[in-house]
Amino acid sequence: MKKVTVIGGGTGTFVVLSGLKVHPIDLAAIVTMMDSGGSTGRLRDQLKVLPPGDLRQCLVALSEAPELWRKLFLYRFEHGDLIGHNFGNIFLSALEKVSRDYNEVLETASFVLKTKGEVFPITFDKTHLCVEYENGKTVRGENNVEENIHETSRIKNAYLDPRAKPNQNAIERIKSSDFLIIGPGDLYTSITPVFLVDGVREAIQSSPAKIVYIVNLMTKTGQTTNYKASDHINDLKKYLGRDSDIVILNDGKIPNEILQWYRGHNENLVENDLLERKKNWELIEKDLIDTRRFEKNHADTLTRSILRHDSEKLANVLTKFIL
Amino acid sequence: MKKVTVIGGGTGTFVVLSGLKVHPIDLAAIVTMMDSGGSTGRLRDQLKVLPPGDLRQCLVALSEAPELWRKLFLYRFEHGDLIGHNFGNIFLSALEKVSRDYNEVLETASFVLKTKGEVFPITFDKTHLCVEYENGKTVRGENNVEENIHETSRIKNAYLDPRAKPNQNAIERIKSSDFLIIGPGDLYTSITPVFLVDGVREAIQSSPAKIVYIVNLMTKTGQTTNYKASDHINDLKKYLGRDSDIVILNDGKIPNEILQWYRGHNENLVENDLLERKKNWELIEKDLIDTRRFEKNHADTLTRSILRHDSEKLANVLTKFIL
Repeated sequence: MKKVTVIGGGTGTFVVLSGLKVHPIDLAAIVTMMDSGGSTGRLRDQLKVLPPGDLRQCLVALSEAPELWRKLFLYRFEHGDLIGHNFGNIFLSALEKVSRDYNEVLETASFVLKTKGEVFPITFDKTHLCVEYENGKTVRGENNVEENIHETSRIKNAYLDPRAKPNQNAIERIKSSDFLIIGPGDLYTSITPVFLVDGVREAIQSSPAKIVYIVNLMTKTGQTTNYKASDHINDLKKYLGRDSDIVILNDGKIPNEILQWYRGHNENLVENDLLERKKNWELIEKDLIDTRRFEKNHADTLTRSILRHDSEKLANVLTKFIL
Repeated sequence: MKKVTVIGGGTGTFVVLSGLKVHPIDLAAIVTMMDSGGSTGRLRDQLKVLPPGDLRQCLVALSEAPELWRKLFLYRFEHGDLIGHNFGNIFLSALEKVSRDYNEVLETASFVLKTKGEVFPITFDKTHLCVEYENGKTVRGENNVEENIHETSRIKNAYLDPRAKPNQNAIERIKSSDFLIIGPGDLYTSITPVFLVDGVREAIQSSPAKIVYIVNLMTKTGQTTNYKASDHINDLKKYLGRDSDIVILNDGKIPNEILQWYRGHNENLVENDLLERKKNWELIEKDLIDTRRFEKNHADTLTRSILRHDSEKLANVLTKFIL
């Protein structure tokens, strides 16, 4: 079986893992540990635990437990002291408090969720993402980058503070994978942080794995404003230290009212400017949009979560060259 | 195997279940669902869930899962939004939100904790304990009775508001048990509420089971101030509708400094005034004190939790006539 490792965190990684899970693949996830917003950020600050949110998403994506367990781990409290907290996040936080080490946390969570494949945090160190913009401004904390929505300057450099040692099991997994699938996900808050951990770049450079980059559908304020496809690829290369081997772009149509909603938030379709350029990688263009989400929504209740890659369509594209 | 059912909630029930668990007994717990204080009370009020605290204690007591799971379910958060909340309580509350019904909650929790024997909530209705004192005062809510520490009047009557329908599985269990073990536990906040649910008194009256009452070590302000052993037995009979068959009293010595600490809180040793009276029940007197707890403590850091029945000593007494 081919060893496929999905790298990231957040919804994009959830979608890829969910799609690939049903195929005969040796599947794993390597997860960013720099999330500092929302329920995760509060637990991290208040309880001094590792950020549970991205891990929880990957564990649930790989879960083969009954539906009830997946629902439980995604359940978000709507009232009282626990408002806004996600049960899965609370579970991982409490488990960290009573466990010998974080590997015991992962084993226990994987056991109860019956995950197909392992989930590797990229580091067990507590660290923060920092980015320097071309205008000289520096922002510290993943959530602050996420919320820096009025920034139009480009990110010149990203780093971790303090520096972080890698999880050796994640390093071994990178070195022994056949495919490393990166994205979809916000370039600087969900993807790049993984490659900033000490030793990860070197592991990727020395890995025989093919690198597959699934580019986001839309730009993201504060990190990829006005970015075209080539900008995404070039920025990623800077942190990877090598080219991607396969680049996957959506060419499915996104309804105008959704594009308009995004434009109102200063976010735009990631334009494909790759056709005329010299390419070091193979380009795959396909309709990858999850159109089922559109049916349930109306223009007056649009949110960012309406636009997603479709896990099945993505898996179809990926398994064509993986299997 | 003898069918033994422990009735109550709280630490006393935890101690009895923990002691009996290792013996070849068909063991179950019937649990009061009127707790309204602390973490349980807040979850109950804020999330409109059934009170999880007593259930969680019984589930953990019966658990044969690895130590880590028991530690997790008893873990209490010490900081931040979750401060004071117990993980097991949060687990049961979230599970109730995503489950079909409360039986699914119990099945799932029993599965993950690998409980030996079933735990039956006495009711699935949301209801409150109310007590009327002889001085005319009425207090509503288990936590308010618990906190009514300056009250010296006796409780004239206890009832539920609103009235509550019984869990039929609990009724069946009562009717088919060989032994019903009541207590130890605070008479009005941990024990009596079970018998106030519609139909429970009748089930107990018609049950062939022997009733075993384990009397508390100390009196409790607001509910059993100045109560002697006979007062406990008489009050219980009022709500049971029949005599106990076996009464178990401690005759082990409690250190003076602990008695003094309790006296400072208007609580006293439950005096044995049973010797001279006509008895309808068998009396067992034994040293039942958990003395291991004394060693770790000092007079300046005493708390109520220092004084407990010993689970092994209790199990030794109980199994003598059960097995």
